Amino acid sequence: MKASSQGPTPDSQRVVIEDVAPSVDGGRYPIKRVVGEQVVVEADCFTDGHDAIACEIGYRHESAGDWTRSPMLALGNDRWRAAFSVDRIGTWLYTVSAWIDRLGTWRGEFARRVDADDLHIAAQTGADLIAAAALRADGASRARLEDWAAQLRRIQPADVLRSVALDADLMALAQRYSERGAPAALCRDLRVTVDRERARFSTWYELFPRSSAQAPGAHGTFEDVRARLPYIAEMGFDVLYFPPIHPIGRTRRKGMNNSVAAAPGDVGSPWGIGAAEGGHKAVHPQLGTHADFRRLLEAASTFGIEVALDIAFQCAPDHPCVAAHPQWFRWRPDGTVQYAENPPKKYQDIYPFYFESADWQGLWRELREVIVFWIDQGVRLFRVDNPHTKPFAFWERVIAEIKREHPDVLFLAEAFTRPKIMHRLAKLGFSQSYTYFTWRNTKDELTEYFTELAQGPEREYFRPNCWPNTPDILHEYLQEGGAPAFRTRLVLAATLAANYGIYGPAFELMEHIPREPGSEEYIDSEKYQIRSWDLERADSLAPFIARVNRIRQANPALQSDWSLRFHNVDNDALICYSKTAASQGNTIVTVVNLDVAAPQSGWVELDLAALHLRTDATYQMHDLLSGARYPWHGSRNYVRLDPARAPAHILLCSQARSERDFETSRELP
Amino acid sequence: MKASSQGPTPDSQRVVIEDVAPSVDGGRYPIKRVVGEQVVVEADCFTDGHDAIACEIGYRHESAGDWTRSPMLALGNDRWRAAFSVDRIGTWLYTVSAWIDRLGTWRGEFARRVDADDLHIAAQTGADLIAAAALRADGASRARLEDWAAQLRRIQPADVLRSVALDADLMALAQRYSERGAPAALCRDLRVTVDRERARFSTWYELFPRSSAQAPGAHGTFEDVRARLPYIAEMGFDVLYFPPIHPIGRTRRKGMNNSVAAAPGDVGSPWGIGAAEGGHKAVHPQLGTHADFRRLLEAASTFGIEVALDIAFQCAPDHPCVAAHPQWFRWRPDGTVQYAENPPKKYQDIYPFYFESADWQGLWRELREVIVFWIDQGVRLFRVDNPHTKPFAFWERVIAEIKREHPDVLFLAEAFTRPKIMHRLAKLGFSQSYTYFTWRNTKDELTEYFTELAQGPEREYFRPNCWPNTPDILHEYLQEGGAPAFRTRLVLAATLAANYGIYGPAFELMEHIPREPGSEEYIDSEKYQIRSWDLERADSLAPFIARVNRIRQANPALQSDWSLRFHNVDNDALICYSKTAASQGNTIVTVVNLDVAAPQSGWVELDLAALHLRTDATYQMHDLLSGARYPWHGSRNYVRLDPARAPAHILLCSQARSERDFETSRELP
Repeated sequence: MKASSQGPTPDSQRVVIEDVAPSVDGGRYPIKRVVGEQVVVEADCFTDGHDAIACEIGYRHESAGDWTRSPMLALGNDRWRAAFSVDRIGTWLYTVSAWIDRLGTWRGEFARRVDADDLHIAAQTGADLIAAAALRADGASRARLEDWAAQLRRIQPADVLRSVALDADLMALAQRYSERGAPAALCRDLRVTVDRERARFSTWYELFPRSSAQAPGAHGTFEDVRARLPYIAEMGFDVLYFPPIHPIGRTRRKGMNNSVAAAPGDVGSPWGIGAAEGGHKAVHPQLGTHADFRRLLEAASTFGIEVALDIAFQCAPDHPCVAAHPQWFRWRPDGTVQYAENPPKKYQDIYPFYFESADWQGLWRELREVIVFWIDQGVRLFRVDNPHTKPFAFWERVIAEIKREHPDVLFLAEAFTRPKIMHRLAKLGFSQSYTYFTWRNTKDELTEYFTELAQGPEREYFRPNCWPNTPDILHEYLQEGGAPAFRTRLVLAATLAANYGIYGPAFELMEHIPREPGSEEYIDSEKYQIRSWDLERADSLAPFIARVNRIRQANPALQSDWSLRFHNVDNDALICYSKTAASQGNTIVTVVNLDVAAPQSGWVELDLAALHLRTDATYQMHDLLSGARYPWHGSRNYVRLDPARAPAHILLCSQARSERDFETSRELP
Repeated sequence: MKASSQGPTPDSQRVVIEDVAPSVDGGRYPIKRVVGEQVVVEADCFTDGHDAIACEIGYRHESAGDWTRSPMLALGNDRWRAAFSVDRIGTWLYTVSAWIDRLGTWRGEFARRVDADDLHIAAQTGADLIAAAALRADGASRARLEDWAAQLRRIQPADVLRSVALDADLMALAQRYSERGAPAALCRDLRVTVDRERARFSTWYELFPRSSAQAPGAHGTFEDVRARLPYIAEMGFDVLYFPPIHPIGRTRRKGMNNSVAAAPGDVGSPWGIGAAEGGHKAVHPQLGTHADFRRLLEAASTFGIEVALDIAFQCAPDHPCVAAHPQWFRWRPDGTVQYAENPPKKYQDIYPFYFESADWQGLWRELREVIVFWIDQGVRLFRVDNPHTKPFAFWERVIAEIKREHPDVLFLAEAFTRPKIMHRLAKLGFSQSYTYFTWRNTKDELTEYFTELAQGPEREYFRPNCWPNTPDILHEYLQEGGAPAFRTRLVLAATLAANYGIYGPAFELMEHIPREPGSEEYIDSEKYQIRSWDLERADSLAPFIARVNRIRQANPALQSDWSLRFHNVDNDALICYSKTAASQGNTIVTVVNLDVAAPQSGWVELDLAALHLRTDATYQMHDLLSGARYPWHGSRNYVRLDPARAPAHILLCSQARSERDFETSRELP
């Protein structure tokens, strides 16, 4: 044994704290919450021998100097738990500490003593501990503890001594002042990124501003988008997201339908950023000015809508910085830059930045400045294009630095890539993440994927944002399923995921023709041309979308993801799941018909315990889509859904106060 | 963006290594292996974008200066794997590193190129990389690479260029010399404690030396134990474990059946260590001398038996160190020391050490010296009594310090306490651990517990040692079940666990009367008195035990734990499981009747895939207990076990070469 006097005393090492949850990679990354949510902290805490221990959490906003402390409760099997709420945005810290509870140990041992001799000796031991605590107390507390210690030294009759020694109030007082020695603690503080509520609950609408003009064929402007705001607000969206709004390069500009050579008059892809008019901080002249853009933000905010911008860190060949900063690009032996590729996709109109450039610090600084520029214009939401093709370290730094100054800024990661890379991006700071939802269509696929998203360990940091379509992804299901397919996918996205979005008006107008068979690209895609949309079309899904979004707004159960539970249905074409906001007593059960071609029926078997219902419960199911009300009994109930009429039931579940509650006749909204 | 020139360059941060397995608590604790075993290392490794990466493991014995490196293979989903073998005892280190594989990236991109122009530009890029690699190569390799680079710059026809560029041998050569930049690496090396084989496979026999005299009532000696060695070896044990062999205190000595007052002539509990004759380094005078003890060790070794000593760090009140080092004990206000308790058990004859004593360093040093003393006498196996009542930090230090000097020393933790504490002790260095096996008797209990032990994450550090009985634990099942119960429990321990032991001769002579109803203590326990055992009794289980242990020695499948798989039987009284030593082609299927009162039969449903058998396989089951051979077909086969005749089948599974193999008639051993 090395008898080093520098060594820690054994006392501080006796208590073990292990397996703290939540924590991401041992505390390397923060967990995520929004304002008002709880963090439930659990840990394994124990010591050798028979001593009692006490455990507490400490937590604080990083700007607060002092820790707030809260005792942890023993759950059994050496597991302890406590919770705290986060009431402001920014970074919070939390930790766990634990120590030998000498007074508690003494009390437990004292209570076991039977022999009078043992009892009196134990009382002396307790008196010493209490007298030591008294020395750390003041005034009345000190006097009470001194008196208690004196009584323990004096009292003779065993039964009197026992009741005095086990006085719970005095014990609580003494413990407040008892010596904790050196508590065991975590080797590093754990972190929470606390965002505003929109990080958890948001409804996104993507449109191409240049396609928003009233006159067919005209180039839309920010003013035209302003005129669209009532339409978007009526549908219930609270985020309006634009593809890049910057000048579009002319060199190697793409033509319609992604043709490699643009025809005269072709407008090019907005992701081909930068031209003589400017780069990532400029506005496409035909959309308007920075002032127009700021006016649009203000107008949107009066509708409760925030504008999200696309951060696409790449350049058209004639982006000004290609000439100004050639070192930010990777030049090939023939003096060209290899254009961007995302196999099998080719972006001949786009140069990637070279993030490993010798001047990486200059490049990274400039890219951060782009984000800061748009924050200064009033933007607080950014959708980041292909973040997985830039270094992880870049995002971790830039997001941390931005959020330190602007903790209300949120980033959505548009990375459709392998799971571990998507998780990594979420860990290192993205507030929301695109998902594989677009490609999950069967009951098994949806059940497996959303169970993982809602229950897996990644839920602590990965917030899904689910899109039935995007300008890049027109899934076969939508190509072939007609209006029922669009309605089904919308209901699934809107009720499975608290964050979801659509690319419109393509979605509500059911744009469904692919560029060619087998492709997920649209024919005549807005990515390469201006489209004119007839928003007044009689078959538009706008009213349906509006209804679904109003249901989301009115029901807190649909505004977060963790409560999601799937329930059995004896028909694979029907999927059933519930979400619950327990504190508001709000439960929504959704049943969706995945078969867009035929009516489907079956018996739903609800997990009543998960819904806090008794097995013999009678309860009302109010279909918020149709307005119908159904009395349900017990776990098994019958459903039938005809895709020609309604893709789904979105059922508000309420327990009957009496049978009379169910006499309410069907009502239409 | 903070443009600190001290900051790491982004290049070194691009590759991520995550979720490395095996590792215990992020590398805080070593995993365990024995000599000759493999460590299969897996990790998630990936980078941003589309670059290829390469990954390798490094490993070395801690005394070796250089790392041996071995490439990892991609398993898909960004998971990588490699393995290494540990061929000597001691501490090994291993780690994972990963880097951007620029040549591999180039090769992948080159192979995708279609246009001749692209192809020639890409060839130039490759030529630059290869020429750079050539500069790091010598002689012939350098020349070959320079020539390759020159060809890539020169060749014109696209198809010729393509085949030259994709030459696999030249690529392998170039990669050997290619620049790796700064590979990503783990923030700390991971460790393996490599023990000798007995840590994984051992068969323990516990006896009280003082009960080993031939003459009834006489105090046994080490010489008497020597005379017992042939008997123990014949039963197939390779570890002989003694309760403490030190002088026994006289103050508050326990009498027979744990009575608080000893009668004259009572020998006391061996765990009441220390008297005028000496303490933890002394030998009880009636057992013999240190020289006798060393002679016993030598004699045992000729039988292939190692002697294990008990490390019980506690003192009788008249242990010499109570007077010599009063500061090592915790004195109560009345000037006494509180005796040891392990509620509800009371040990009035034992003082615990005070590990938090002001002189803790002196105490800890002395206790380490006790272990070193017995190592110097030749002991290499220690069973540690109640390690959970001493500080974790003490064991971590003392075991590390002992094993640094004596890596062949093994420690068995006798902690029957809560799971997390048992796991902690295993993590911090104990080589083997007692288990809850003694209290797991039903099929469900055994299946759940052994699945956890064999498949759970703790298998990396927690090596179970299973005991059907101990001097402290006579389970109700043995009290009531007669010989069939003893046979059943022995077979379970011996075939479920590669490390197991019995407390004898109580076990083979089926000692089964409790001290009082409901107690797990033996009547007339050897803990408090000398017993005389009639080893020649006709009903002794010694021959049965010998047979089971010979089966263990002959079948490598039973010599390790991780391959354990349970198989369905349609009768809850029958349990079936297999173990496989794949590299030796050895598979054992055990079927045990848990009902000690009646014959039981049922259909076993083997998981043939787990046994590497085809679903329509015909195979021979050779019952190594009875000698019978059974032809089995497919997964479902019938078994019947009569506890009056045999508790179990221990079936050696061999695939038939032809039907004739099964004509072999039943044979007796």
